[in-house]
Amino acid sequence: MLTELKREAYEANLALPRHGLINLTFGNASALDRRRGIFAIKPSGVAYADLRPADLVLVDLEGRQVEGRLRPSSDTPTHRRLFLAFPQIAGVVHTHSTHATAFAQAGRAIPILGTTHADFFNGDIPVTRRLTRREISGDAYEWETGGVIVERFRRLDPLAFPGVLVNRHAPFTWGETVHQAVAVAVAVECVARLALLSLSLAPGLRPIEPALLRRHFRRKHGPGAYYGQAS
Amino acid sequence: MLTELKREAYEANLALPRHGLINLTFGNASALDRRRGIFAIKPSGVAYADLRPADLVLVDLEGRQVEGRLRPSSDTPTHRRLFLAFPQIAGVVHTHSTHATAFAQAGRAIPILGTTHADFFNGDIPVTRRLTRREISGDAYEWETGGVIVERFRRLDPLAFPGVLVNRHAPFTWGETVHQAVAVAVAVECVARLALLSLSLAPGLRPIEPALLRRHFRRKHGPGAYYGQAS
Amino acid sequence: MLTELKREAYEANLALPRHGLINLTFGNASALDRRRGIFAIKPSGVAYADLRPADLVLVDLEGRQVEGRLRPSSDTPTHRRLFLAFPQIAGVVHTHSTHATAFAQAGRAIPILGTTHADFFNGDIPVTRRLTRREISGDAYEWETGGVIVERFRRLDPLAFPGVLVNRHAPFTWGETVHQAVAVAVAVECVARLALLSLSLAPGLRPIEPALLRRHFRRKHGPGAYYGQAS
Amino acid sequence: MLTELKREAYEANLALPRHGLINLTFGNASALDRRRGIFAIKPSGVAYADLRPADLVLVDLEGRQVEGRLRPSSDTPTHRRLFLAFPQIAGVVHTHSTHATAFAQAGRAIPILGTTHADFFNGDIPVTRRLTRREISGDAYEWETGGVIVERFRRLDPLAFPGVLVNRHAPFTWGETVHQAVAVAVAVECVARLALLSLSLAPGLRPIEPALLRRHFRRKHGPGAYYGQAS
Repeated sequence: MLTELKREAYEANLALPRHGLINLTFGNASALDRRRGIFAIKPSGVAYADLRPADLVLVDLEGRQVEGRLRPSSDTPTHRRLFLAFPQIAGVVHTHSTHATAFAQAGRAIPILGTTHADFFNGDIPVTRRLTRREISGDAYEWETGGVIVERFRRLDPLAFPGVLVNRHAPFTWGETVHQAVAVAVAVECVARLALLSLSLAPGLRPIEPALLRRHFRRKHGPGAYYGQAS
Repeated sequence: MLTELKREAYEANLALPRHGLINLTFGNASALDRRRGIFAIKPSGVAYADLRPADLVLVDLEGRQVEGRLRPSSDTPTHRRLFLAFPQIAGVVHTHSTHATAFAQAGRAIPILGTTHADFFNGDIPVTRRLTRREISGDAYEWETGGVIVERFRRLDPLAFPGVLVNRHAPFTWGETVHQAVAVAVAVECVARLALLSLSLAPGLRPIEPALLRRHFRRKHGPGAYYGQAS
Repeated sequence: MLTELKREAYEANLALPRHGLINLTFGNASALDRRRGIFAIKPSGVAYADLRPADLVLVDLEGRQVEGRLRPSSDTPTHRRLFLAFPQIAGVVHTHSTHATAFAQAGRAIPILGTTHADFFNGDIPVTRRLTRREISGDAYEWETGGVIVERFRRLDPLAFPGVLVNRHAPFTWGETVHQAVAVAVAVECVARLALLSLSLAPGLRPIEPALLRRHFRRKHGPGAYYGQAS
Repeated sequence: MLTELKREAYEANLALPRHGLINLTFGNASALDRRRGIFAIKPSGVAYADLRPADLVLVDLEGRQVEGRLRPSSDTPTHRRLFLAFPQIAGVVHTHSTHATAFAQAGRAIPILGTTHADFFNGDIPVTRRLTRREISGDAYEWETGGVIVERFRRLDPLAFPGVLVNRHAPFTWGETVHQAVAVAVAVECVARLALLSLSLAPGLRPIEPALLRRHFRRKHGPGAYYGQAS
């Protein structure tokens, strides 16, 4: 069932260690078939080297396991909440990539300090508030993790800001496909490293000017985009 | 004799350079057969590329070499002391991995600044006191190295804190199997790097809240664990 | 048409990710046939793994696409402006390599702090001024990017300073061949990393003495050069 | 002629990029046959990927090229001066490895902050004084580079301190064989990185205690050594 969707999620999961975004079994990717309301996600705690396409677990948007012998990722409720809140997206990626996680642990947004960043995000990469003690300790910690992300995006377009840092935790990214969510995960790590190094050279560095942000973001996004090949 | 144990220790040793935890011949792993009271450990100063399973040296818990043409690792007495003091463990790993060793050299525990850390340790990764001049210069330096670790763990559970930094030296990790000890060695290096980068962004950063630590540690450890596959 | 030129540009483009200078599809290389006034450049937004020699796009120095099914890199006008302004060069490379980009984002030249740097540049690696709002927002942003580079080089020899940091953006390098421009791109990243680390050890570090700069630069450049094999 | 010596130097040269110590063509290794007074050294400016054993150049201790179509490394006079001054050594390695070069550029010795360092050096890794303008600009810059190294070692044993940082330049290492000199080059880079990170965590960090230095250095060197296999 949904062999193609499982294959897509499988390949996205394998791309994460290949891009150096993963240590051990941290991290996971999921791909959604929005028409059917079912997504394929990595099984929990399985080593990437051992993963096969058939191991991917199918879960529906109500949270029921539809197929799969294995237990889905413990972060499944976070993915599900993002799919429910952001109707534009069909792929979610979670990593503990080094430099992005360093910003998340420090509770700081990644400031927009150059054009590399502006090619992917229409401003700073946002950080959530911390979860409350109740949200952390209740029955639905991972669902609440999705909740603080959704709360942070009340006034943000999730395609103009295709990722977030969960405070004290690590980044989540997304896209219209899981393949795009992987590319954003690579970009977030790259941009975090650039920002960290730039700040070490110039601690009070200011964000780039709005005109430059607009130019680079629109080069790649929206009706006037002229980067890449016409599709 | 104990071919399976030697193979297990051999594979753990080879995993160390593959995970980028080793330079030159620094570092070693050992696996214990607790019923027999014998452990297999890397021979001293042998290059990883040249190591074969049959080169592993068998040593008993009294410190006698039971089998093997080669001299065991000079750190053998440290491994032995840990096996004697911590009855729950059957594998020990020692590396000089970069970021963990940077904390050890600075004499600082690795503060718990995020959930990646809480998935493995139930608090800061502890650091030992320095050895005294007498401990360093006597006949049993490596045995005394084990001693300051054991002293540090008087009130700590070695499975809730599966590793330590030896002051001025480098990390040791352990587990119920040597395979687990390797995973902790990878995690300690990863967590050390995250902490170092987070502290460079936010020098006065505080530890994560107890509820978040508890949630993440218990997700993976103890009766309520729900990470990974039921065994 | 110009198969050899396309092959040369193709190989230069592939060298960029191999040297660790590229993330995702950022970056591009071009090779010029100055007699014909035509250069081969990477198509826009194509993944390096998918690139074939026949995909390279041919563009003339007036900016007309001469051959190629695909759209050329969006940075093509910057390459073209450099080829027009610097008659000594026949290759241009653009990357977002980590440490060089960190300096660019911080708006800082890379100070000449050691002999590694002096082997390639006859002084600091310069940084452009920021583009004005008008330059950024008009129809010719990428052409204007070339313009601020050319402006910075009014009194600099582009072969003695074979590269630049575009403020808030990233490095461009060049050479008498695109192969040389790639080597300079590697050197700029290496030198930027060395400078960043040296400055972290010694924040007020001064440039090397003029005699040492002269000695190392002339060892490799000009009539008295004695590095490498006589050609 | 001296095929074995050339092969040994060839393999040492290839080991440098494999250990991540080299960018582009920076760096070189040489092996000496002390009985004949001839050493084999890398040719100048040849890419490592293109190097073949027969390309190695033979030079005698008077500086005459004894064999080889290619020009020897421009650093040949430095190697020669070290072979003349230190009769215990038969191999020299020069790299621009990142962290060691960062210390060299900053003009700082690498302080001895942990046991990893003490396994290789019996104290800080020394740094030379700067060369004078006359030494830099005269006919024998590379010979004078050897001169400031030898001057720094007037009261140091070159086997207890098997390497040095040339001020504003980069490290040189050596050993009883070129194979050992390569191992020291790896260790110097590793130790430099550890020191840089430890100092970023604890800026005023003090050297390790003399007893610990003595213990670790003697574990590997001298009559009481007990690390590795008896030879």
